[in-house]
Amino acid sequence: MRLRVTYHLTGSSRAAATMARDLAFEQTVELPPDTVAPEVAARIAGHVESVRPLGRGRSRAVVSFDPAVVCGDVPQLLNLLFGNISLKAGILIAAIDWPEELLVALGGPQRGIAGVRELAGVAARPLVCAALKPLGLSPEDLAGHAHRFALAGIDIIKDDHSLVDQAFAPFRERVERCRDAVARANRETGGNTLYFPNVTGGPRDLVRRAEFALGAGCRGAVVNALPAGLGAVGAMARVGLAVMAHPSLAGAFFQRDHGIAPAVLLGDLFRVAGSDAVIYPNVGGRFTFSQATCVAINARLRGPLGPVRPAFPVPAGGIDAGRVPRWIERYGPDTIFLLGSSLYREPDFGQAARRLVEAVRRHSHG
Amino acid sequence: MRLRVTYHLTGSSRAAATMARDLAFEQTVELPPDTVAPEVAARIAGHVESVRPLGRGRSRAVVSFDPAVVCGDVPQLLNLLFGNISLKAGILIAAIDWPEELLVALGGPQRGIAGVRELAGVAARPLVCAALKPLGLSPEDLAGHAHRFALAGIDIIKDDHSLVDQAFAPFRERVERCRDAVARANRETGGNTLYFPNVTGGPRDLVRRAEFALGAGCRGAVVNALPAGLGAVGAMARVGLAVMAHPSLAGAFFQRDHGIAPAVLLGDLFRVAGSDAVIYPNVGGRFTFSQATCVAINARLRGPLGPVRPAFPVPAGGIDAGRVPRWIERYGPDTIFLLGSSLYREPDFGQAARRLVEAVRRHSHG
Repeated sequence: MRLRVTYHLTGSSRAAATMARDLAFEQTVELPPDTVAPEVAARIAGHVESVRPLGRGRSRAVVSFDPAVVCGDVPQLLNLLFGNISLKAGILIAAIDWPEELLVALGGPQRGIAGVRELAGVAARPLVCAALKPLGLSPEDLAGHAHRFALAGIDIIKDDHSLVDQAFAPFRERVERCRDAVARANRETGGNTLYFPNVTGGPRDLVRRAEFALGAGCRGAVVNALPAGLGAVGAMARVGLAVMAHPSLAGAFFQRDHGIAPAVLLGDLFRVAGSDAVIYPNVGGRFTFSQATCVAINARLRGPLGPVRPAFPVPAGGIDAGRVPRWIERYGPDTIFLLGSSLYREPDFGQAARRLVEAVRRHSHG
Repeated sequence: MRLRVTYHLTGSSRAAATMARDLAFEQTVELPPDTVAPEVAARIAGHVESVRPLGRGRSRAVVSFDPAVVCGDVPQLLNLLFGNISLKAGILIAAIDWPEELLVALGGPQRGIAGVRELAGVAARPLVCAALKPLGLSPEDLAGHAHRFALAGIDIIKDDHSLVDQAFAPFRERVERCRDAVARANRETGGNTLYFPNVTGGPRDLVRRAEFALGAGCRGAVVNALPAGLGAVGAMARVGLAVMAHPSLAGAFFQRDHGIAPAVLLGDLFRVAGSDAVIYPNVGGRFTFSQATCVAINARLRGPLGPVRPAFPVPAGGIDAGRVPRWIERYGPDTIFLLGSSLYREPDFGQAARRLVEAVRRHSHG
């Protein structure tokens, strides 16, 4: 089976067939059809499977590729799908059908929903995640926040995604202090809160930080997947960490007529790259996703995908104790709710976190 | 001095001041102003320096940041500039003023224009680069192309950016065969052609491939900087390779009202990350850049930037022997002309490459 990519093309329906054929060559052999040997063109260039009008000056083209062109390499997957044509106009990746061979080569999540549940010791209910912020606090202050969140019964406490290795909160000191604070709270409550530091960095820093986090006893970590390169996700998983991927920069791809649809980028691509959980801005928060987009991302993260494990959606923002029942009903139990900045508006954010955790537990029992 | 970022904001001029203030907090502390301790806000949140109407429903806002927030980390730089706000709408990064402190921390090109000239043994004229393609050829066939290009006097022969580690052209075999073919041609001609393989990959593959290329005697390499993560550029430079960065995926950022201006992304950001040479689609080729955009990218790659070395612009496409004098006049001698697919249209692409090399040499002597 081939990798089948559905593109929405903007332009006249007469132009669409030409656009699709150009794209099929541009993304592979990068030569015009008449300069490529026929046997190479047949094997390596994309095949235009169909082109249909969509109305309103748009067409739907399905182009298929030989998965051998990707060779299980995540950066090359991005390059094949949208590398050069990003520099053209009016080309949107609307859907991808994945061949088993490529899914096996890419691997996907090492733990997935079941594996993260096992780490958290939570069998069936939604998980609750809180972010350590703001950037600018000392490791000691961040650890103080972590302690309060862990006492409140938060399942996963993650570094804010801007915390890297700043002089005022150095990576190693931050990881050790936050780990200790969470462990202390777990001893006090008998709980099992996890701490996921942010290990984003260039290739060498990322691997070093991931190894340090694992050695410090962390079971998972956060990464800004696009700034670090989407291949960073797999590198972290191979170190042995559960991976929570953050959508920093992803919005560049979410133009209406050009880019990669949110459910394809944050659903399919982040998942096949190996993310066990994917953060996205929830509807009703301070970003621009619709309810339909959020539901589509959830479906692509959790739905059947050959041998690839399902990943947790992590909607961020728009969630408080009062609205918990509504969100559980909409998104289902296989969700990690990430408490956004609203928590920090509360006079006592530890108390607010506890109310939210209790609401999730209560509404998950029926 | 602070990192000063000029944003173009779309919306009413009344809304612009609020947008700018939101952005200054969103990109740093990720909390609304009223929930951040004043001393943290003053130190860590962005400062809105000015907001001015630009006409046509747009405003120009300058927001400055403490360079300590970046801590010399390239992925964090991208995250600070555009991470979360990529998910909003109508925000374009139009220009950046760099503080010396941050430039020193980032480092920039290890070789720059002078260093690449030294590797190529070319003192003052423009360089000529050709790409090995198409994907689908065997290492043997690619090496045959490399031999012909080297005999023609091409300065730098680079792998096409889709060549990774596909089963039909495995990385190590390809590198060794192409290296040998170029060395053989150099012995035959007394020339000094360089071969730059493509080392793009996830964090561990990238470093391994870069080290292998260096060990095989290559002096530089190509990377798809955004698919690999922009930090890959610095990792390659630290291995000891000259870095030629390819703009794959960059077009996602080039929307009119939202993203990062081409001269900022391919000029400033690719340069400060450490690229010695940056490929971009030349006007008149098959992509959409204007002449003004190309000139602006050249200016940002080559212009004064504190202690950061200038980098080579590598316009790709739209260049043939007949038009060489015009391009040299427009772009100047500190340019690497990348021969695009047009070369492969010629009945004898070795001959066509030679004519182009000769045209460049001839027109560089006055």
